[in-house]
Amino acid sequence: MPNFRNQFNSAIAYSNSYPKLSLIRDQKDLKECHHLFLVYDRALLKQGNFVQWKEQFTLEYGVDGGEDLKNLANLQDHIESIADIIGDFPASEVLFVVVGGGSIGDFAGFIASIFKRGIKWVQIPTTWLSAMDSSHGGKTALNVGGVKNQIGSYHPSAAVILVREAFSGLSDLQLKSGFGELVKMALLTGGFFYRNMLECEDGMESCMWQFLSRAIAGKYKVVKKDPYEEKGERRVLNFGHTFGHALEAHEGLPHGVAIAWGIRFALNWSRKRNYMTKSKYTQICEELDTLTLYKKNLMASHIRMSADELREYLLKDKKRTKRQSLNFVFLISPGKPVVKSVTIQQIVTEAIRQGWVDQ
Amino acid sequence: MPNFRNQFNSAIAYSNSYPKLSLIRDQKDLKECHHLFLVYDRALLKQGNFVQWKEQFTLEYGVDGGEDLKNLANLQDHIESIADIIGDFPASEVLFVVVGGGSIGDFAGFIASIFKRGIKWVQIPTTWLSAMDSSHGGKTALNVGGVKNQIGSYHPSAAVILVREAFSGLSDLQLKSGFGELVKMALLTGGFFYRNMLECEDGMESCMWQFLSRAIAGKYKVVKKDPYEEKGERRVLNFGHTFGHALEAHEGLPHGVAIAWGIRFALNWSRKRNYMTKSKYTQICEELDTLTLYKKNLMASHIRMSADELREYLLKDKKRTKRQSLNFVFLISPGKPVVKSVTIQQIVTEAIRQGWVDQ
Repeated sequence: MPNFRNQFNSAIAYSNSYPKLSLIRDQKDLKECHHLFLVYDRALLKQGNFVQWKEQFTLEYGVDGGEDLKNLANLQDHIESIADIIGDFPASEVLFVVVGGGSIGDFAGFIASIFKRGIKWVQIPTTWLSAMDSSHGGKTALNVGGVKNQIGSYHPSAAVILVREAFSGLSDLQLKSGFGELVKMALLTGGFFYRNMLECEDGMESCMWQFLSRAIAGKYKVVKKDPYEEKGERRVLNFGHTFGHALEAHEGLPHGVAIAWGIRFALNWSRKRNYMTKSKYTQICEELDTLTLYKKNLMASHIRMSADELREYLLKDKKRTKRQSLNFVFLISPGKPVVKSVTIQQIVTEAIRQGWVDQ
Repeated sequence: MPNFRNQFNSAIAYSNSYPKLSLIRDQKDLKECHHLFLVYDRALLKQGNFVQWKEQFTLEYGVDGGEDLKNLANLQDHIESIADIIGDFPASEVLFVVVGGGSIGDFAGFIASIFKRGIKWVQIPTTWLSAMDSSHGGKTALNVGGVKNQIGSYHPSAAVILVREAFSGLSDLQLKSGFGELVKMALLTGGFFYRNMLECEDGMESCMWQFLSRAIAGKYKVVKKDPYEEKGERRVLNFGHTFGHALEAHEGLPHGVAIAWGIRFALNWSRKRNYMTKSKYTQICEELDTLTLYKKNLMASHIRMSADELREYLLKDKKRTKRQSLNFVFLISPGKPVVKSVTIQQIVTEAIRQGWVDQ
């Protein structure tokens, strides 16, 4: 599959409803894929439209999303079940059609990358977070023991199909989580994307569908510079993540919400270090605060974590490069991130200064 | 690692003794690899030179070769042990140095391909079979349940280093096995390689070291045409394998010996179907029969398999494309293979005609 290996720009298609299977087969390089194998989130069985659409598949495998799905300990059972279903079909004629959120994409994409040395796949993400983030850029992963994403591959899907009705039935927390990711991409990308988002007066769902293509374009712009993460260019996508991950782990916040709070932390620190001018900082804070959707859903509030707990978490977080220092993404202005190496102690000191945690 | 993903031509180096580590580090694209992680066959601990050389590594992992090593059920334990040894070193700074035969290359290469989404690696094959065949072309694999190579990846090593002293201590059967592979590559490649091999009057070990580079060049010539096995070009490398695999499984012959017998079967059938002229056939048979090394080590003898057992095996063999037919490699003349689709019944009928099995 040389095309997929060298091209991190999956074909992107938008559709209000689940697509005709002929449309999937018409994608470039998929003409030979006579056997579509559906891997889907069992939670979707509550969606009537999905259930009806699913009836067209003769090969299918339902799974439950979540971190347990990504546990290497379960891989052998999954592979054996999938091998039973696919049977004798040659790998080159099989296409995985993967419908679900981030964990299902990570799981099914990883299996697609190793089963019979590689099967082509397309994704239909069903959470906003996976639609904007994990579906793009080719990364797949499993967890080993307690370690997240310890193994994985670069195996971009041939196409990512964004289906509006697939996002129906998401919880309020999942909506908020997606909106946090949208704000991140708007701040990272800047320009009209950021300005227009500030003016969006629709509900969260409608606002996200409207800006989805721009968030995705923003992600590809970064990914294409560094598809295999060799140059560090992808690091900017961690904007808000260093502090955000700690909040996610310790406060049990949804990922996107934790990232939004982490972004607030990064903005404050960017100002403190003078990477961001005072006027720019004041402007961004005011802009975010007057964006009703942001104010209602992503405004940071009190946290329970102590300085010691924060330090402890940062020491364990996989994103660190050495035991005591890590790359932190600051913002000069919307569209202009800058990555600097900071020590864990500096992060903790700054969190105390900002009043997130007590000394 | 774009270079490795797009290039199936690993660097090849020849050395009489285990190489200096600085020589490994000097390979293209490996300058950043400060941490060499040795994965080796524990059987090598009987080789004094290896033991001495091994002392230079601070990170090491000894394994026992064989199919059990390739069992997916054991993967989690291996990954956890390897993660413990490698610790916090960034993936881009680690290099796997893999010393062993085919199963160890398949195993360690697969882990290198998925650990932290991909680690660079170099190989030092320790069997003639892996030196000529499995070390080249980028294929890695594990077994799932009873199914051989059910999962795997294309993850070529940055370099394959052929170390003559690494082949010391091989059993007579392993030598014969390698020599069978050499004969296969000579017949597939033809020209001076085939002619010169016929004239080799040294012992097997010396003859193989002498022709190793030509066998490897022959393999790359094929692999480069079809690195991901999409066009079927790699199929010619299965010369002698269809019937040979059945012999290997049922008669317990070493791989290369079984392949040599399978080649004899393919030569006879090529003549019967008139792909090969009568004079060419007579010439090749005479040439092989006068090659002392061939006559002494690879001459086919009586087998115990019945026609039904052969049919049964061929039905199960992974190389079939449909339940009843598979691609068979015939030979027009040395250097000119031709692949044809045949039915399993045709193979069985031919085996009866040639007198290998009873009706």
